[in-house]
Amino acid sequence: MSALRGLPTPCALVDLERLERNAAMMRRRARTLGVGLRPHVKTHKVPAIARIQHDGAAGPLTVSTLTEARAFAAAGFRDILWALPLPHGRVQEALTIAGGLDRLGLLLDCAPTADELGSSAALHGTDAAVYIKVDCGYHRAGVDPDSDEALDLARRIHAHPRLQLEGLVTHAGHAYSCLGPSAVAEVGLREGAAVLRLAQRITAAGLPRPILSVGSTPTVMQATGLPGIDEIRPGNYAFFDAFQAAIGSCSLDDCAFTVLAQVIGRYPATGSLVLDAGALALSADPGPRHVAPDCGYGRLFNQDLSQPYPRLRLAALSQEHGKVQVRGGLRPGEFPVGSRLRIVPNHSCLAAACHPVYHALRGDLVAAQWEPVRGW
Amino acid sequence: MSALRGLPTPCALVDLERLERNAAMMRRRARTLGVGLRPHVKTHKVPAIARIQHDGAAGPLTVSTLTEARAFAAAGFRDILWALPLPHGRVQEALTIAGGLDRLGLLLDCAPTADELGSSAALHGTDAAVYIKVDCGYHRAGVDPDSDEALDLARRIHAHPRLQLEGLVTHAGHAYSCLGPSAVAEVGLREGAAVLRLAQRITAAGLPRPILSVGSTPTVMQATGLPGIDEIRPGNYAFFDAFQAAIGSCSLDDCAFTVLAQVIGRYPATGSLVLDAGALALSADPGPRHVAPDCGYGRLFNQDLSQPYPRLRLAALSQEHGKVQVRGGLRPGEFPVGSRLRIVPNHSCLAAACHPVYHALRGDLVAAQWEPVRGW
Repeated sequence: MSALRGLPTPCALVDLERLERNAAMMRRRARTLGVGLRPHVKTHKVPAIARIQHDGAAGPLTVSTLTEARAFAAAGFRDILWALPLPHGRVQEALTIAGGLDRLGLLLDCAPTADELGSSAALHGTDAAVYIKVDCGYHRAGVDPDSDEALDLARRIHAHPRLQLEGLVTHAGHAYSCLGPSAVAEVGLREGAAVLRLAQRITAAGLPRPILSVGSTPTVMQATGLPGIDEIRPGNYAFFDAFQAAIGSCSLDDCAFTVLAQVIGRYPATGSLVLDAGALALSADPGPRHVAPDCGYGRLFNQDLSQPYPRLRLAALSQEHGKVQVRGGLRPGEFPVGSRLRIVPNHSCLAAACHPVYHALRGDLVAAQWEPVRGW
Repeated sequence: MSALRGLPTPCALVDLERLERNAAMMRRRARTLGVGLRPHVKTHKVPAIARIQHDGAAGPLTVSTLTEARAFAAAGFRDILWALPLPHGRVQEALTIAGGLDRLGLLLDCAPTADELGSSAALHGTDAAVYIKVDCGYHRAGVDPDSDEALDLARRIHAHPRLQLEGLVTHAGHAYSCLGPSAVAEVGLREGAAVLRLAQRITAAGLPRPILSVGSTPTVMQATGLPGIDEIRPGNYAFFDAFQAAIGSCSLDDCAFTVLAQVIGRYPATGSLVLDAGALALSADPGPRHVAPDCGYGRLFNQDLSQPYPRLRLAALSQEHGKVQVRGGLRPGEFPVGSRLRIVPNHSCLAAACHPVYHALRGDLVAAQWEPVRGW
């Protein structure tokens, strides 16, 4: 087993103890809330991590790409929801993957896509499990739950012989721009209310009650109850990150994904350092500037994470350089070139996707190396 | 040969005609300026593209990672400069790669790294080609060319039996924040002046004259003369991008790298669309907001790039979603779901690094598929 201190920089590290703690925390939370847990695996894209999230089982998952669907299907997961409005050009591929699973849920929010999917499913001679995407105020995608269009779409899906209306899905992405936990909780209440309202209209129209699926990591972390909701789909909680810590979903000590880097330049005249981790190791995500204007591109710690470095601000990233500004200037001898640091990135989903491999650490030892899937 | 219209979305496209035109333009520019051309390949990370940049030859290159150095060495390139301050933990690896090349130039800007490299080279029984990184005002890395430290470092390298002081390297990364071409040109003059001043001090001290290497794509594009300079290291020009177009390095018609996407959501009530290209297909680079506050995350065109869509603004990216705001709202029937678009990204270097493969187009046909190298 190799050791943390022997790993080349930059590289991606997953702290197993934190990951397992986060996974257990979310399973408990789902049980307490009385809902099923369908983790979104886009954060890590590694089947072994999804197993940890389900305590060893191949439980229900959410994916963001067909590549993820294929990889997790090959790893034994049989109930997968593809949480992206179905692209027309990918329908045949999706139906082929669905054929090998218990369920591949497909998302849509408009009649033309329902028609496209219905025709393809008929041609393919298979049924398709359809989820209607509902807009709960994020205004990225989804039907207005109070619109005629939403009910018409449910009826259209229900009426098609090859389409099964399985559920309603919503995601409160706007929770990330909230200013604090109580505002997040408020958004979470509206997230649940949106799918509940549409479900009531659907059953009032004589259609079967669909599964109600909600959830972002922030709203789930602030939820005190989810009456009427069937399942949650948080993803980021497996790793957490500096953004989630800033908005109150976790503490920095919960962040399981970090990037190991080293000091490759030291400039006492300007009180700055250069690290060998730039935008290709961390992503250029600007982070939680609305609540932490001085957040920089992540939070810095010593190599074994025992010591935060609040005086260090990761002020700028170029492709392979990270520029650190040292508050109060560099003291003689501190942070010499060759010093190794750990960075908790702003956004672990985007930072993790930068890396061809994650080194999974148990303490200071590398217990596993995982290759996340990539592409679409 | 497959066709553009059959490619799945999202995917990365390289227009060969534009790439070849950009490559020929930069070769002419280098000849006119009387300097050598050592393109930075971090933008594309594909040996076949570097061959196009050198008109078929395996000419001198600049790389940003040891992974690039290894891959381009394996593809026949024999004169490579690793343009990152040498990380201490990677010295042995670098010397091993150098052993198989005519030259692997290694960058440093401080005495501890020179000592580390000198000791390793002595142990390894090989010589190391050293370039001093000079700060020309970007203040990311490099020695102050007017400092005692800079001259001391040159002397220290020269005095070491295993270190050869090959050159001085600078990079005016701050040209990207300029407000227009004349300000860029001004930064370019200071870029050249910085290495010239240090070179004069070095030769005045009785040391051999080092090679003088400068260049960013913006400063090279605005240069009218580079007296005393030996080589330029532009990288981005192979692809160009929306950022370079905004600061006057190129026009949008020169941009050779695009991302193909499709409309997967259409929302007349909010005048918005959702594309299946998000931060993992485009990077989260915020772009040239200092000169184009409304730039969004890239510029949109129709599938064959014959038609710009200035009414479409790529306003927000999440992991796999791109949200487009339509100025003046959606007109009936326009941009139905399934419509395919091309996106010129803000920053082609970061966007290209998102993709496991580039489809190289000659007209509307895929002439080649290239897999860029990845990692460190």
